[in-house]
Amino acid sequence: MTPQAFIDQIIPHKNPVKTGFGIAPVNIALSKYWGKRDVALNLPTNSSLSISLPGLGTQTHLTWLPTLGQDAISLNGQRLSSEHKFAKRLSAFLDFFRPNLAGHFQVITHNSVPTAAGLASSASGYAALVLALNDAFEWQLSLQQLSLLARLGSGSASRSLFPGFARWHKGKQDNGMDSYAEALPESWPEFCVGLLEIDIQEKPLGSTAGMQKTVETCEIYQAWPEKAEKDVNIIQKAIQNKDLTTLGETAENNALTMHATMISTWPPILYWQAESVAAMHQIWALRNQGHSVYFTMDAGPNLKLLFLETEKPALLQAFPNLKVIQPFKVI
Amino acid sequence: MTPQAFIDQIIPHKNPVKTGFGIAPVNIALSKYWGKRDVALNLPTNSSLSISLPGLGTQTHLTWLPTLGQDAISLNGQRLSSEHKFAKRLSAFLDFFRPNLAGHFQVITHNSVPTAAGLASSASGYAALVLALNDAFEWQLSLQQLSLLARLGSGSASRSLFPGFARWHKGKQDNGMDSYAEALPESWPEFCVGLLEIDIQEKPLGSTAGMQKTVETCEIYQAWPEKAEKDVNIIQKAIQNKDLTTLGETAENNALTMHATMISTWPPILYWQAESVAAMHQIWALRNQGHSVYFTMDAGPNLKLLFLETEKPALLQAFPNLKVIQPFKVI
Repeated sequence: MTPQAFIDQIIPHKNPVKTGFGIAPVNIALSKYWGKRDVALNLPTNSSLSISLPGLGTQTHLTWLPTLGQDAISLNGQRLSSEHKFAKRLSAFLDFFRPNLAGHFQVITHNSVPTAAGLASSASGYAALVLALNDAFEWQLSLQQLSLLARLGSGSASRSLFPGFARWHKGKQDNGMDSYAEALPESWPEFCVGLLEIDIQEKPLGSTAGMQKTVETCEIYQAWPEKAEKDVNIIQKAIQNKDLTTLGETAENNALTMHATMISTWPPILYWQAESVAAMHQIWALRNQGHSVYFTMDAGPNLKLLFLETEKPALLQAFPNLKVIQPFKVI
Repeated sequence: MTPQAFIDQIIPHKNPVKTGFGIAPVNIALSKYWGKRDVALNLPTNSSLSISLPGLGTQTHLTWLPTLGQDAISLNGQRLSSEHKFAKRLSAFLDFFRPNLAGHFQVITHNSVPTAAGLASSASGYAALVLALNDAFEWQLSLQQLSLLARLGSGSASRSLFPGFARWHKGKQDNGMDSYAEALPESWPEFCVGLLEIDIQEKPLGSTAGMQKTVETCEIYQAWPEKAEKDVNIIQKAIQNKDLTTLGETAENNALTMHATMISTWPPILYWQAESVAAMHQIWALRNQGHSVYFTMDAGPNLKLLFLETEKPALLQAFPNLKVIQPFKVI
C-alpha cells in the first residue's frame, strides 16, 4: 500500500472549507519507538508508550488559498523558504491532502519547544497539523483515524493526539490500518516529568536516519523489538498499579537499551554529550542516596527525569534548571 | 572440573626451588572479552584479540618462605594488609600452587600502570605472576601452558604472556584445556596505540562483576558472542593486510558494542565519564576531517587510540597528554 492509498482510505474528501486550527502536546516515550518495519507507511517494529506534556507543544493554523504558488509556511513567526528542510518535509506531507485545484496551503505554526532537539517537536507538530487539516476540511474523523494520519507524518505524532499516557500499537497488518495510538485511562496526579536541557541545538542526525542505520548495521539490534514490546506491557501495568519503581526502572533501561543499539551502530550514533553523562551519574548518585528518580532520553542529549511530587524539592535542588511538569495536575 | 584439578593437570609439582621472577606487559583488546561461559575456570563466551604494550606492565618477584604466616604481598613498594582486596585475590590464586608445607609466599610486585583503572593491570599482573611461579618452581612450562594458568587468575592475563598481537581462543572443551592465547606472527612498526587517560581512579565495578551482571540482565547481550567471534577474525585478517581502516572500524565498533551491552544492563553499567564522551566526539570530528584514528575502551573511562605513525603529530596536537606507544618499533 502506498501512503497516498492509505490516506485516501481514511479521509472522506479533499475539499477545504475554512481555516483549520490544531493544537497538540509533545510526548515523551517511556518505552521507545526505534526501528521501522515499513519506512513509507511509518510502521514501527514495536509498540511504544508515552506521556504527553500539557503546555508544551504546537499550535497550527492551516488555510487553503486558491491562488497558485508554493506553500506558505511560517514557524514561530518566521516565514520559511520552500527549500528549508522543515518546509520541504511539511509540504511533502501536505501533498497527500492537496485538493485537485490550483492553489497552495498557508501554514502558521508555533512550537513552544525547540525544533528538532530531541524534545519531540515533530510529534506535536504533525499531530497539530492533522487536527488543523481535519478542522479545515471538516472531515470529522475520529482520534483513532487522526492518529493513523499523524503517524504518516512522524511516527511518534500518532501518540501526541492524546493527553496523559498513550500507547501506540505496532499493529500487524501490512496496510498499516491497525497501527495507531490510544489513550490509557489512568490519571496519576503525583507523577512528574522533569526536563533537563543539556543542549537545544538541532541534533546532528534525525531520528529517521538514525533508526534506519541502526536497523541496517547494529549487530545487537535483533533483540530490541521483542524487548520493547515487553517493556510496553510492563510500563502499562506499572501505570495501572501506580508503581513508580517499576515504571522508572523499565523506562530507564528501555531508553538506555535504545541508545545502546545506536552506540553499536556503524558509524556510531551517540546523541549524548559530556553533560548528558555527567547528569546520568548525578541521577544514579541521587538514587543511591535513596531518591526515587529515573530518567529517559530520546534522540538528543537532553534528559527527562521521572519521579513523584514528593521528590520535587530534592530534584530542584540538585538540578536548579529542571523544568518540572505534572501532566495530571489540575492547575 | 575444578580450578584445582585443572591446575594439577598442568603443573608437574609443588616444590619451590628459588625466588622466581616474572615480567609481563599490559595488553589492550582490539576485540573484547566480555562474558564467561564458566566462571570458576574463567572460560570466555568468545575469543578475543589484543596488542601488548611494551614498557607498561608488571614485574614480580615471588619466594616461598618456610615459616608460618600469611602471604607477604607488596605492591609498588607498599606492604598490603592481608584483608586488602588485591592481596586476598592474589592469595586465593596462590592457594592453587601452595606446597603441602608450613610456610607462605612473599610477593613483591611493581605495576607501571595504575591498578584497576581499566588499563589491564590484572592482565599483566597475573601473567607476571605465573611467569614468576614457573621460575620459582622451575616447572619449565610452555607459554601455552602458562597462558592456561594465567587465564585462571584473570581472563585477559592469558594474552599478556606475548608481545605484539595475541589471540585468545575461547576453546570448546568443558575442561578449559583449549582456552589459551597465542601470539600472532605479524609485526607492524607503524602501528600506534595512544593512551588517553581520563581518570586513573579505581573503577567502581570490577570487570568480573560487570560481565556477570551483563550476561544475567542485558536483554540484547545474546548477539554479542557471535559478533565478537566474527570481529576477532576480521581484525586478524586486517593485521595480516596491514589495513588500519578495517582494524580501526572493527575495534571501535567492537568496543562500543561491548559498552552498549553494559549500558543496557540493569542496574546500568556506564564506565564512561563526561570527559570520555567529549574525547569520543573529538575523535569523530578528527575522523570527519580526514584523520585516520579510531579508539577502543575497556571497563573504565579511558580511551585508547589506534592509528599509524603518520597521524602522530596531529593527534599529539589534539591531545597534548596522549601517551603514544609503538608496540613494534625497535628503539
